[in-house]
Amino acid sequence: MQRTVERMLRTSPEAPFAPADPLSACIHACVECAQACTACADACIAEHDRALGRCIRVNLDCADLCTAASRILSRQLYPDLGVVSMTLQLCATVCDACAYECSRHAQMHAHCDVCAAACRRCMDACRTLLGTTVEPRRFH
Amino acid sequence: MQRTVERMLRTSPEAPFAPADPLSACIHACVECAQACTACADACIAEHDRALGRCIRVNLDCADLCTAASRILSRQLYPDLGVVSMTLQLCATVCDACAYECSRHAQMHAHCDVCAAACRRCMDACRTLLGTTVEPRRFH
Amino acid sequence: MQRTVERMLRTSPEAPFAPADPLSACIHACVECAQACTACADACIAEHDRALGRCIRVNLDCADLCTAASRILSRQLYPDLGVVSMTLQLCATVCDACAYECSRHAQMHAHCDVCAAACRRCMDACRTLLGTTVEPRRFH
Amino acid sequence: MQRTVERMLRTSPEAPFAPADPLSACIHACVECAQACTACADACIAEHDRALGRCIRVNLDCADLCTAASRILSRQLYPDLGVVSMTLQLCATVCDACAYECSRHAQMHAHCDVCAAACRRCMDACRTLLGTTVEPRRFH
Repeated sequence: MQRTVERMLRTSPEAPFAPADPLSACIHACVECAQACTACADACIAEHDRALGRCIRVNLDCADLCTAASRILSRQLYPDLGVVSMTLQLCATVCDACAYECSRHAQMHAHCDVCAAACRRCMDACRTLLGTTVEPRRFH
Repeated sequence: MQRTVERMLRTSPEAPFAPADPLSACIHACVECAQACTACADACIAEHDRALGRCIRVNLDCADLCTAASRILSRQLYPDLGVVSMTLQLCATVCDACAYECSRHAQMHAHCDVCAAACRRCMDACRTLLGTTVEPRRFH
Repeated sequence: MQRTVERMLRTSPEAPFAPADPLSACIHACVECAQACTACADACIAEHDRALGRCIRVNLDCADLCTAASRILSRQLYPDLGVVSMTLQLCATVCDACAYECSRHAQMHAHCDVCAAACRRCMDACRTLLGTTVEPRRFH
Repeated sequence: MQRTVERMLRTSPEAPFAPADPLSACIHACVECAQACTACADACIAEHDRALGRCIRVNLDCADLCTAASRILSRQLYPDLGVVSMTLQLCATVCDACAYECSRHAQMHAHCDVCAAACRRCMDACRTLLGTTVEPRRFH
């Protein structure tokens, strides 16, 4: 998949709205994290362990937001940099929350350990892209 | 659908994380806006009008973010209020951007007029919910 | 929202690919069902009842497929009628499965009762639209 | 990402519902294809070429269905094999349609060439998984 993301960026008639390397890295990290969180929610449900309720919840939210982020980052035509910046900040925040929650169960449940690592990679990729590209939009 | 959203909120074992009226209003507004933006993007593509490129783009982003927001708001178990707050702020921001862009074409294209109204309703519903419920999380 | 779906259909430069009444009814039913299933999965997780594992699973699948269906039905430009037909058949099938599973828990959990009704409405709306519009595509 | 998909499968308390190799290959192919189609729709919109209307439409549908498929395949708990089988058939069908349409523009637009290849890989992966795992469900 690595090459597909990069090739799609290179062949678009629009220049990437951000440096291509951190942009493609962030797209990869978002789709990886969305998939890991979807699978981790399912695995946590299968554990039938009350202690995993919060983990399931944040996994589902993280999957939805990473999917939305991966789509928004995949579009190069007329980006709204305020929306892109807030999307990256929100994605980093939910990945941070999900990584924290998964890491609490990582010793007991290996799927939480794998998922936490994917969340941390995505958080880092969002922050790196934010740093190289888009002026942060100030929230109140 | 009005009653289904409200009935799902009332029958959940979890109390709604926010007052039920503005919460259900916001869920309705998000799903309405996601649908309108998906349809408006399609209609704009069908117009074959170069001037609509920016409108298509923001329609697609707005649809993705409103869909994600509607899912996150539909979950009552263990919400992360920071994530919820940022989601509402981002949703309001993209709705505002989409309403602005659609309103520029509203006289020429009636679908943009209908979509702009749905975006404004969603923006308002997100802000109302933010005001009643969740402390805004500060972005940098 | 009723009027927004219908207004978007009426204002598109493309004629609806199917009769407008069953088409808008099906879009409404899909978005209603997607929201109900998302909320029912969350409520079932909150019940902490092993017997609901299968219900959570089919709720999540049903939410994803109804969301995809609502988007595909919202587009009028160049529909692939084979894809539309299969989407409607799959949506009806997953709604049937979800209605069946939810109805098994309907006496114990009111959210499953509400969700089952939304699933049945969506199944019916998909089948009605299939009947009025698109030649079924044969699967092997 | 290769390893994350596989690690999530291996660490789930549920055995994979299908042989792990074609299952993980299909998940990868679906997420790759969803991303490529999202990017190709954006690139086609940016071309401002009337001849690409059909390509944009099928790209958007293919992205939505591949995303739904990737989520459904990522869940191992209590799969409904009829729903899984139909999802794979529909995903293969929309990938076939998208590959066909993209290939018509592949000489003129390199992004369509890259996207067509991703669609073909996803179609093949869905069919391979169908062949190894799940009895096809008969549609009427």
